[in-house]
Amino acid sequence: MTQNNTINRRVVLASRPHGTPTLSNFRLEETAIPTPATGQVLLRVTYLSLDPYMRGRMSDGPSYVAPVAIDEVMGAGTVARVEASQHPDFKAGDLVLSQSGWQDYALSDGTGLTKLDPNMEKPSYALGVLGMPGFTAYVGLLDIGQPKAGETVVVAAATGAVGSVVGQIAKLKGCRVVGIAGGADKCRYAVEELGFDACIDHRSADFPQQLAKACAKGIDVYFENVGGPVFAAVLPLLNVAARVTVCGLIAQYNATDVGDGPDQLPLLMRAILTKRIKMQGLIIFDHYATRQSAFLSDMSTWLKEGKIKFREDIVTGLENAPQAFLGLLEGKNFGKVIVNVAG
Amino acid sequence: MTQNNTINRRVVLASRPHGTPTLSNFRLEETAIPTPATGQVLLRVTYLSLDPYMRGRMSDGPSYVAPVAIDEVMGAGTVARVEASQHPDFKAGDLVLSQSGWQDYALSDGTGLTKLDPNMEKPSYALGVLGMPGFTAYVGLLDIGQPKAGETVVVAAATGAVGSVVGQIAKLKGCRVVGIAGGADKCRYAVEELGFDACIDHRSADFPQQLAKACAKGIDVYFENVGGPVFAAVLPLLNVAARVTVCGLIAQYNATDVGDGPDQLPLLMRAILTKRIKMQGLIIFDHYATRQSAFLSDMSTWLKEGKIKFREDIVTGLENAPQAFLGLLEGKNFGKVIVNVAG
Repeated sequence: MTQNNTINRRVVLASRPHGTPTLSNFRLEETAIPTPATGQVLLRVTYLSLDPYMRGRMSDGPSYVAPVAIDEVMGAGTVARVEASQHPDFKAGDLVLSQSGWQDYALSDGTGLTKLDPNMEKPSYALGVLGMPGFTAYVGLLDIGQPKAGETVVVAAATGAVGSVVGQIAKLKGCRVVGIAGGADKCRYAVEELGFDACIDHRSADFPQQLAKACAKGIDVYFENVGGPVFAAVLPLLNVAARVTVCGLIAQYNATDVGDGPDQLPLLMRAILTKRIKMQGLIIFDHYATRQSAFLSDMSTWLKEGKIKFREDIVTGLENAPQAFLGLLEGKNFGKVIVNVAG
Repeated sequence: MTQNNTINRRVVLASRPHGTPTLSNFRLEETAIPTPATGQVLLRVTYLSLDPYMRGRMSDGPSYVAPVAIDEVMGAGTVARVEASQHPDFKAGDLVLSQSGWQDYALSDGTGLTKLDPNMEKPSYALGVLGMPGFTAYVGLLDIGQPKAGETVVVAAATGAVGSVVGQIAKLKGCRVVGIAGGADKCRYAVEELGFDACIDHRSADFPQQLAKACAKGIDVYFENVGGPVFAAVLPLLNVAARVTVCGLIAQYNATDVGDGPDQLPLLMRAILTKRIKMQGLIIFDHYATRQSAFLSDMSTWLKEGKIKFREDIVTGLENAPQAFLGLLEGKNFGKVIVNVAG
């Protein structure tokens, strides 16, 4: 199925998953490309961001974002070109960051659009290291984690869009950085390319023992992207006054009921009390007004100076977005997942 | 068994409890009253503080304080009079705050002694509203909870030494305050005497429903002293950006193994993430250097102005300390438990 110039393809939510999503929860549809009315622009999506939080939007349980309605386009951050404009602030050819979702074309009245430098080298970075994931890493590590030089920082999903940036910023701050990732390739990359001090494969049978060995002085800051057994291995290693940023829980997004016993909650409460641990959840939308300019300034500098590397896992074609998303939930991606829709 | 002037009575830890402590874990002993050497003072304990944290010191699991050794005197904060002094900074008759433990007399080289106003109206307040519990309430509510006027603050163990102060400070800050306590008498006291907006009996069969009704706008700040089923009822009511001060977990101090399933930990992690909740443990020893003078100034003023009330549950006689401590762990006390040793 290829795209032509009169058809808009879009991926809608066909049904809500019970547990792990499957391809049958999505449907690729064709509609006519819409025409912008006065005050509107027509956007051509070039890059589409796939992120774990989207799993939450497929369900209708209580969450911090409204669920996607059945038969509606899956939401997502996107980079797009203005194809036609009836809006005074935008002209054809402008490059923008938008929330156009999983589709080729979208209308916008300009709300929430951010103009990007039309000549930026890697426009997809606006969805990654210079966008929401990078900003999440920045605020979650610096504002909540507050790492000090010499401390041990552990980051889960260490080669992912957020985790890879967390670890590299922590290195810039003088910390010992231990990553947790799935598989030897990712672990090698975290150490050899990203400069982490160690990276432990959470699929190893002796993962808890390896993690303890890599964190001989305990853990001062833990950046949580995973949950489940990974957190269970981290918890006993947390130091007095440790800070835990709870940014994601990809291991438990597909859970359909409460976990089997024993109940680990009293254990966590006791650790929080006796070790004065701080745990704090992070939703990046809360922080744009106060912290985004500092983030963009710092991150642009670090990229320019080669101090932060960022790996993308680019999938070509909108029609491949559902499969790529299912792979992301299973940790099959290696780096930030970007769908090249028409880049 | 009464005290005479040549014998020092002391309560030692006879054995470590497995689960709920019993009287057999303690032993009342008699020794000679010691004689101060050069540089020492002999202290006569007048008031002895009993606090839930002492349960932790009876066990030898990892904790933030070293355990009491078998056959050693149980530790405790005390108010004492200097009986005899060979120390240049102290003279007979001085009133001091000390860590003399569960005994009539103790020697000290002056380390950790704080002189009190010898004419203070209620010396035992130095162990309560003007001491460690009051300071815990102050820092835990204001620094971690950060309540804003109009917010809903819920406090567990609402008539206890810490909880009663937490609730009253929250009222002074313009919050809606809902207490949780065990029994109708305590709940009535919290509302009628302490000025709480509501207080729910956690022994009621429909406690979770009653709590939800009393917190119609959800919970912005929760001050945890209890854990267990009380926390389970609080968790679903926490608002976005709620703050949870974890100060005590009296309901689980006697647990001998991990709890029965289902595992509630993933539920908590999800709530922390989706609601950006902050949870933080509190050990008051961390805060003396930076916050004690502000606390003493504020609290003295509030007491003088009648804005804070403080109820003591005074037990007479050192020999009754073990039984009073067991009652405290079961919530049988009504107010701050103080043993009047020789007041």
